[in-house]
Amino acid sequence: MSAFSKMWDMIYDVTFDPSRMEGRVIVNVSYVDRDDLDRVIEIYREVDRSGISLSPYIKILEREGYRTLEIMTICSMTIDGLLLKHGIPINPIGGGVLCVRDGMGVRFTHFLKYESTTMDPLEVLAGMGLTSILKVVRTGSGRILGNMREVPMVAREDTEAILGEVIDSGFRGIIEVGEPNAELFDIPTERDHFGVVIVGGMNPVIAAEEEGVRVETHAMKGVVEISTMEKISDV
Amino acid sequence: MSAFSKMWDMIYDVTFDPSRMEGRVIVNVSYVDRDDLDRVIEIYREVDRSGISLSPYIKILEREGYRTLEIMTICSMTIDGLLLKHGIPINPIGGGVLCVRDGMGVRFTHFLKYESTTMDPLEVLAGMGLTSILKVVRTGSGRILGNMREVPMVAREDTEAILGEVIDSGFRGIIEVGEPNAELFDIPTERDHFGVVIVGGMNPVIAAEEEGVRVETHAMKGVVEISTMEKISDV
Repeated sequence: MSAFSKMWDMIYDVTFDPSRMEGRVIVNVSYVDRDDLDRVIEIYREVDRSGISLSPYIKILEREGYRTLEIMTICSMTIDGLLLKHGIPINPIGGGVLCVRDGMGVRFTHFLKYESTTMDPLEVLAGMGLTSILKVVRTGSGRILGNMREVPMVAREDTEAILGEVIDSGFRGIIEVGEPNAELFDIPTERDHFGVVIVGGMNPVIAAEEEGVRVETHAMKGVVEISTMEKISDV
Repeated sequence: MSAFSKMWDMIYDVTFDPSRMEGRVIVNVSYVDRDDLDRVIEIYREVDRSGISLSPYIKILEREGYRTLEIMTICSMTIDGLLLKHGIPINPIGGGVLCVRDGMGVRFTHFLKYESTTMDPLEVLAGMGLTSILKVVRTGSGRILGNMREVPMVAREDTEAILGEVIDSGFRGIIEVGEPNAELFDIPTERDHFGVVIVGGMNPVIAAEEEGVRVETHAMKGVVEISTMEKISDV
């Protein structure tokens, strides 16, 4: 199955309800050594406090006898699934490295479209050392992972209402809802559509990698009931 | 506002519920002379009986003192709106002239994409004399107007269930649900998507034009409550 098809499978499977904090969300999975877990959690909290993680929810899986743990983080495609369940025709465009200055997104310095990659763009870019997530956390400027979808302008009000609900529920990584017929961070959208840029859910784990922790991350690994995840930060 | 934007506006506004035959549908509008009305209705019924009209519902508007009547027919984009309301990510591709042989669709001989036209493709093609709708009605072979959307394969079962409900409600113009990763009537779809071809709602009126009735048709003219329309055929 292609990455593109897997993406739609997962988006379609989302049942996330932010008002009740229930339902299925899409998760990324990061593999880390047991000894590094505390450090990863600590960095996760630091990144979450600055709003560059999508959510404070993670799930840790350990298997007896194995040194490696799985940390699940919520993938921003979950928001695409939520919008679609409300009848909003989202079109995921791609993901990239977003340059941030003084806490504001400026432009994508690298960007890969979903239709032209067989792997998830953020998974590809995460491994290339292009980010400076902790620099953004500490100074307000640097490079983070983000992705973008486009929505027809007729659905703008409904989209904003749903994203507002998402933010109220403690998800803080919605960076920007663009204007119709305008580029967003240098990425064009289709005529009479607007872009929505959301932080990559894997940012906090990639931040740990920036600090020297060995992490292997896979995007969109599966779908998980959010009520089985734990909230590790409470800003 | 561009045609593309107008299309999404209308799709988004659909509230059609086939099980209760209620809610807003998208309509095309045809202008005909008062004296030609009976002839148009007669041809409409003939085309509807053969399954080449989308629905048996029309609405006639007359203004006192005017010779010209407006006939509203249900536009097939209504089905896109219905699918979207059920959380199915439809992507309208375009419309064209579909060659039919022995009652089966064969291939699009002409096809215009929505993204590359500023007018509705069927409105453009309807005026070009490329159809032979009554020939299809009478012999099973000829050329009709149809349009196509694509859907990710994960939503295939749900799409078929909803289209089944539409057919049960008396709408008969769903021509074909294609296979994933395959062309449909020579039009390609995106990877891991399948195509759905539906007859153009204006076919019965264009058929009247083939018989020499003067008709001017505009696609996607507005959105109307279906319960205010009348059912003119009962097959």
